[in-house]
Amino acid sequence: MAYFDNAATTYPKPNEVYSFMDSFYRKYGGSAGRGEYALANTAKGIIVETRRLLQDLLHCPAKQVIFAPTATIALNMIIQGIISGGAKIVYISPFEHNAVTRILYHFKQLGQIAVKELSVSETLEYDLDRMRYQFDDVRPDFVIVSHASNVIGLVAPVEDIFDLAKRYGAVTLVDMAQTAGLVDLNVGLDTIDFAVFAGHKTLLGPTGLSGFLMEPSIVLPPVLFGGTGYDSANQNMPNSLPEKYEMGTINTIGVAGLNASLKWIGRQTVEKLYQLDQLHRNRLLEILSGYDFITTIGVVEGRKYVGIVSCLIDGISSDSAGGILSSKGIAVRSGLQCSPLAHKRLGTFPAGTVRFSVGSFTEDKDFAELVTALDYIAENM
Amino acid sequence: MAYFDNAATTYPKPNEVYSFMDSFYRKYGGSAGRGEYALANTAKGIIVETRRLLQDLLHCPAKQVIFAPTATIALNMIIQGIISGGAKIVYISPFEHNAVTRILYHFKQLGQIAVKELSVSETLEYDLDRMRYQFDDVRPDFVIVSHASNVIGLVAPVEDIFDLAKRYGAVTLVDMAQTAGLVDLNVGLDTIDFAVFAGHKTLLGPTGLSGFLMEPSIVLPPVLFGGTGYDSANQNMPNSLPEKYEMGTINTIGVAGLNASLKWIGRQTVEKLYQLDQLHRNRLLEILSGYDFITTIGVVEGRKYVGIVSCLIDGISSDSAGGILSSKGIAVRSGLQCSPLAHKRLGTFPAGTVRFSVGSFTEDKDFAELVTALDYIAENM
Repeated sequence: MAYFDNAATTYPKPNEVYSFMDSFYRKYGGSAGRGEYALANTAKGIIVETRRLLQDLLHCPAKQVIFAPTATIALNMIIQGIISGGAKIVYISPFEHNAVTRILYHFKQLGQIAVKELSVSETLEYDLDRMRYQFDDVRPDFVIVSHASNVIGLVAPVEDIFDLAKRYGAVTLVDMAQTAGLVDLNVGLDTIDFAVFAGHKTLLGPTGLSGFLMEPSIVLPPVLFGGTGYDSANQNMPNSLPEKYEMGTINTIGVAGLNASLKWIGRQTVEKLYQLDQLHRNRLLEILSGYDFITTIGVVEGRKYVGIVSCLIDGISSDSAGGILSSKGIAVRSGLQCSPLAHKRLGTFPAGTVRFSVGSFTEDKDFAELVTALDYIAENM
Repeated sequence: MAYFDNAATTYPKPNEVYSFMDSFYRKYGGSAGRGEYALANTAKGIIVETRRLLQDLLHCPAKQVIFAPTATIALNMIIQGIISGGAKIVYISPFEHNAVTRILYHFKQLGQIAVKELSVSETLEYDLDRMRYQFDDVRPDFVIVSHASNVIGLVAPVEDIFDLAKRYGAVTLVDMAQTAGLVDLNVGLDTIDFAVFAGHKTLLGPTGLSGFLMEPSIVLPPVLFGGTGYDSANQNMPNSLPEKYEMGTINTIGVAGLNASLKWIGRQTVEKLYQLDQLHRNRLLEILSGYDFITTIGVVEGRKYVGIVSCLIDGISSDSAGGILSSKGIAVRSGLQCSPLAHKRLGTFPAGTVRFSVGSFTEDKDFAELVTALDYIAENM
C-alpha cells in the first residue's frame, strides 16, 4: 500500500511516537492531575511539558495551550463561544472545512450571524486591498482562516489578513490543522487570538488529542461543561486557564504520543520538514503532469502550498478514480474532502476531486507504486 | 505504588489492550471511514466491530452506539441537546458528578430549566413511592441517574426509576461511567433512552474514547458540528446515525484499545468481574474497619455497591490524608471527587473524603501496602 492520504491523518508516525505511547501508558497510565500520588504527578509532568513544547514550536510562550480531543471540538468551543459572546459578522476564507462552515451555518440559520467570504483573486491570491473595502463596508467581528486548504494545500497569508482584521477590532482564529509543525507561523503575534492544531495531522501525533492556543485576555464563554478536578465546589466552570476549557479526563496516552512527536519535530526542525514536504509535493506534481488525462486543480505558480494536490481524471468521476486507485493499493481521498465551500470556489463542486497528500514518511516506493497505478489507468482508459 | 484510584481511570489495563493498540496503530493507523482504500477499511472494520461488542455487552442490539471522546462530551451532547429540544424539568440523583451538574447549572442560570433531586432515604434507598409524588407534583421532562456514585459506589435501581419516569413521558439518561462492563444492566429496555459509557474506566480501555448508546427514535438536536466524511455537501449535520453526532476524526487508536478490552471483558464475563470487584471491596472495607480513626461514609448494609469506598480520617483533613497516603505510595483521590452535590447529601461537604477504589487488577501486594501505610498513620497520629 502507498499512503497518499496524509491530509486525513499522517501515517506512519515517527517510531518514537508509537513506542513512547506504549511504554508511557503501561507505566504511567493512572489519572493525571486529579490525584496527588506520584503516578498522577508523572502524567501531569508530561502534560505540562507538552504544553511548553507546543508554545515553543509556535513561538507563543504567552499564549495558553488548551487541549481538546479533536480540532473539530476545539473549533466548536471557540466559534460557538465567540458567537455566544456577541460576534455577528463572521468572515471566512473560501477554503474552510465543514468543521468551520457547519458550525457557522447552524448560527446563520438561527439568524444570529452573517457569514462573508474573504476576497481571493482568480489566481488564488488573497486580495488585501479588496478585503479592506469589504471590512469598510461590513465591519468584521470575527475572522476565521485555514492556514492551508485541505483540498489544494494553498497557504493563506494569515499574518497580513489578521493584521488587517485587528485594525477593525475583529477576533481572529487560524485553523492550523494542515500546517502546525510543518509551516512556520508566529502564533505569538498580538494579531492572532486563537490557533487550532490537530495532533494527528502535521504534528505527527496520535488521534484523540488536539486543541488550541489562545490569547488569555480574550473573553471566551465556555460552551462545554463538566468536571475539572479543580475548584469542584463551584458549579460554574472555573475561571482559571486551562481548566475553564478542559473538562473531563484528559487523554493521557494521546498527550504522550504528541509529546514524542513534538520532540521529534524539534529535532528535525520545521524548516527541514517543510523543505522535505516541498520535495515530495514537487515529485508528486511531476508524476501527475506525466499523464495527459490528469488535471491538477488550484495549482498556481508563485503561491505557497503544503503537500496536498487535488486533481480531476478525464472521463472518470473522482469517486470512481479513488476506487480504482484504492484497488491498486494507492490510498487517496476522493470527493469533497469535507470542504464543499472550497470545491464551489474551485469549480469542482459537487463531484469533487481526487486528493493526493504526501507526508514526511512518503518514500520512493510509494511514488513508484503510484506510477504503476497511474500507468495501469492510462493503459485501460 | 499501590493503585486505589480506579474510579478515576482503571489501571493497569489488560495486557491485550496495550499490545493491540500498539500493533493496530502501527499497522492500520490511517484514516478510518473517510478514504476507500484498504487501510481505512480495516480501521473501519474495527470500529464496526467495537460498536457491536458494546451492543452485545449492554444487551441492546437495537440501540445506536455513538462514539465521543469523553463521557463528559457525551453528556454535553445529550443534556444540551435534550434541553435545546425543550426539556424544562430535569430530575437528577443526589449523587451526580459535575459532568452533569455543571451543564445543568448553566441552563438553570439562563432560566431555561428547573433541576430537582430524586428522593433518596436516610438509609440511601431510592424511594420510589416518594418519587411518584414528586413526579405527580412536578412532571419530569428529563431524568438523569448515575448508575453508580463515583463517591461511595452506591448503585441506583435504574430500571425501577426509569420505569416510573417513562410513565410520565420523561426522557431518560443513565451515566454508566462507573459501571459499564462491571454491573450488568439491560440497556435494551424501552425505558432507557440514553446510556453513557467511559471507555477508560470500568470498560478497561484507554483514555480518549467514550460515548453513548441511544434509542434511535429520540429527537436529539446536535450541539456540536463538523465534518463527518459523509454527506459533505450538506451544511446541516447529516440526519443518519451515527454520523449526526460523530463529527471530526474518530480516535482509531482508542477504538482499537476499547475493542481489545471489550473482548477481554467478554471472556471474563461481567458477572465474574463484578464478583471479583465485590471481593476486593470487602477486603478494602475489612482493612479500613481495622483502624478506629477511619470512618467509612455511605456504607449501608443491604445496598448494592461497586468497589468505591469513601472515608474520613479523624483529625486530618481529607486533602492532608490523601497527601500522606500519596507519600507512602498509595494512590487515592481526596476532596470532592468532582461531585460536590453527593458530598452535600452525605454531609461531607466542603472538605470531602478520601476515596479508595479497587479494580480488576488490584492485588494482594496492593492491600499489603495499604495496611503498611495505614499502620504508619496509626503510629504517627
